[in-house]
Amino acid sequence: MFEFVCQQNCAHTQARAGLFHTPHGAVATPRFMPVGTLANVKTLTPEHLKAAGAQMVLANTYHLHLQPGEDIVAAAGGLHRFMGWSGPILTDSGGFQVFSLSEMRQISDQGVVFRSPHDGQIIELSPEGAIAIQEALGADVVMAFDECPPYPASRETVIQATQRTLHWLERCIAAKQRPDQALFAIVQGGVYADLRRECAAAMVPYDLPGYAIGGVSVGEPNRAMHEIVAVTAPLLPAHKPRYLMGVGTHLEMLRAIAAGVDLFDCVIPTRLARHGCAIVQGQRWNLKNARFRRDYEPLDATCPCYTCTTFSRAYLSHLVRAKELLAYTLLSIHNVTELIRFTQAARQAILEERFAAFAAEWEQRLVVDAEEPNAALL
Amino acid sequence: MFEFVCQQNCAHTQARAGLFHTPHGAVATPRFMPVGTLANVKTLTPEHLKAAGAQMVLANTYHLHLQPGEDIVAAAGGLHRFMGWSGPILTDSGGFQVFSLSEMRQISDQGVVFRSPHDGQIIELSPEGAIAIQEALGADVVMAFDECPPYPASRETVIQATQRTLHWLERCIAAKQRPDQALFAIVQGGVYADLRRECAAAMVPYDLPGYAIGGVSVGEPNRAMHEIVAVTAPLLPAHKPRYLMGVGTHLEMLRAIAAGVDLFDCVIPTRLARHGCAIVQGQRWNLKNARFRRDYEPLDATCPCYTCTTFSRAYLSHLVRAKELLAYTLLSIHNVTELIRFTQAARQAILEERFAAFAAEWEQRLVVDAEEPNAALL
Ligand SMILES: [Zn+2]
Ligand SMILES: [Zn+2]
Repeated sequence: MFEFVCQQNCAHTQARAGLFHTPHGAVATPRFMPVGTLANVKTLTPEHLKAAGAQMVLANTYHLHLQPGEDIVAAAGGLHRFMGWSGPILTDSGGFQVFSLSEMRQISDQGVVFRSPHDGQIIELSPEGAIAIQEALGADVVMAFDECPPYPASRETVIQATQRTLHWLERCIAAKQRPDQALFAIVQGGVYADLRRECAAAMVPYDLPGYAIGGVSVGEPNRAMHEIVAVTAPLLPAHKPRYLMGVGTHLEMLRAIAAGVDLFDCVIPTRLARHGCAIVQGQRWNLKNARFRRDYEPLDATCPCYTCTTFSRAYLSHLVRAKELLAYTLLSIHNVTELIRFTQAARQAILEERFAAFAAEWEQRLVVDAEEPNAALL
Repeated sequence: MFEFVCQQNCAHTQARAGLFHTPHGAVATPRFMPVGTLANVKTLTPEHLKAAGAQMVLANTYHLHLQPGEDIVAAAGGLHRFMGWSGPILTDSGGFQVFSLSEMRQISDQGVVFRSPHDGQIIELSPEGAIAIQEALGADVVMAFDECPPYPASRETVIQATQRTLHWLERCIAAKQRPDQALFAIVQGGVYADLRRECAAAMVPYDLPGYAIGGVSVGEPNRAMHEIVAVTAPLLPAHKPRYLMGVGTHLEMLRAIAAGVDLFDCVIPTRLARHGCAIVQGQRWNLKNARFRRDYEPLDATCPCYTCTTFSRAYLSHLVRAKELLAYTLLSIHNVTELIRFTQAARQAILEERFAAFAAEWEQRLVVDAEEPNAALL
């Protein structure tokens, strides 16, 4: 039911193109997945997402447990029907959010106790609880409940979090009942390559339908992230999808694809849109910039999205300046399309056995951009 | 170029069904027109508007003059291209907004001087200026620059405003140059029926392609508005479209259609949406209401809009409670569809010679609703 078919391996890197089958359809990898934290990708309808090329979308256990509650989603017939998305869905376990967003955390081997930011109520989340919520939500892919250590964190702290994550994974596997959901494990280990290796080695024997790399993009230097991904990804089973959590910039995705990662998610395209920013060929443009006021070109003449084929930069700049909500929808349409298209282009390059050249060309372009900040940058 | 073809007259009321031809297509009347003040109907894309059945949409001279400026719109190729709307567009003249929104107004026969709310700059708007801006914007229908007296206002004040409006109309006619734009006159006269009659009688001889009733819905009692519309509409030429400005509730549109009005506009459907409210069969529902939390029915099972065919009240309630911007888009889609459908239903009833029964049934339903406030009302 959750077969991952590798269609092509790159001869020069670890990159591969694949098809990940789920009960709600296949995901062609590598692929960027838009984030719909509260059962919607901010400002976008499911129609917009489909047009953007979205296949699998995310939702969040922590946020949906607090609001509206998984019982309301379950009574609607599950997340797919509730949010009107008939394609594959992945729910994050809430581990990352409990550790990064909630106050008054008491962490024990049992689980985490925290205070609801909505009504101050005391809430407990455990491996069994996270699985139960995710079974009620009904996504195709559910994530194991993990402990994500902060950055920086001592080696001792990271060892403890990684061991707890392993222990919790066993309990998630034992608690899980629905056969139509795939459980992915999350490799932790901070920026310590040896701990990452140990964690991956301990998780692989469970033969789960997919593996994620978690605990990155939490403040560590980019170089550390690239190293950890390059070390960890190849240790994960080649015949299972690999998912790098919370990463969605061009350069980071490009390097992770080269390391053998298949799936990505990030809130950046919709968040940037709400700040009036477009991602164009990997660059960030602030539409409030004066240079766009009378610029009647489309955002990106090569982009097939509704925004680029219908409106000019001048119109988008006008909407952003006027703080019109439509600006955020139109920029989100483009930004989500842009990130998905980038992963689609990488996939096409892998299939056509020219990924190494594709990666070299983009690497050069993106690194030059990073060194010569554009006037229109955020 | 701006022919109005009356297709059917109601035998029992002044209602009529017609087709108003413009350079960007025909408008089937009676018809509600969505308002896109700043060259966008808030939270809706042109695709949403088309799907909602929108034909003619509005934009605003005052707002677009201040932001982004008509030169930027003109350089884009005009409003149609700027905002991506290929159907008919009507621009209001800015008269109403100058009088209701701007501070420090000096009104003379020459025009109005006011301070820009954006940068404090002193701005002058005159009949000639309003026409010049509207010619730069390039809408199909342009409105004469008028003085809209407040409510309440003395008979003396209203007489002066009406005379000035007549004088300014002559100057608008003299200033107008583009043959592909239709100039509509705006009948003023406050709540004084005799002044309305005089104003209409003075304007009709100009044989303009359309006539509007302005200065209503400015705070006067509903009954006064209905009387003024009933008195004024039949005095306007039968072979020209009649437009009631700023009106968009079911009961008011119903009565105005019965009095012979063809076109309506109002910001209410998108404004209510931004307050989490839906208009369902003429009722206002606040989706934050507890009764919707677990209500898995569509907003209106008889409505063909994207929102009603895709999502439940429970999902919309969740989005509204979570303050997700998507809620405003989905409610706007429904609310705009609802108002347009209501005028389409009235049109169909006129064409099928059953408008009197249609009006009686709706009148009863809407008046009962008004007397028995629903728990879910705003
Ligand atoms: Zn685009
Ligand atoms: Zn609807």
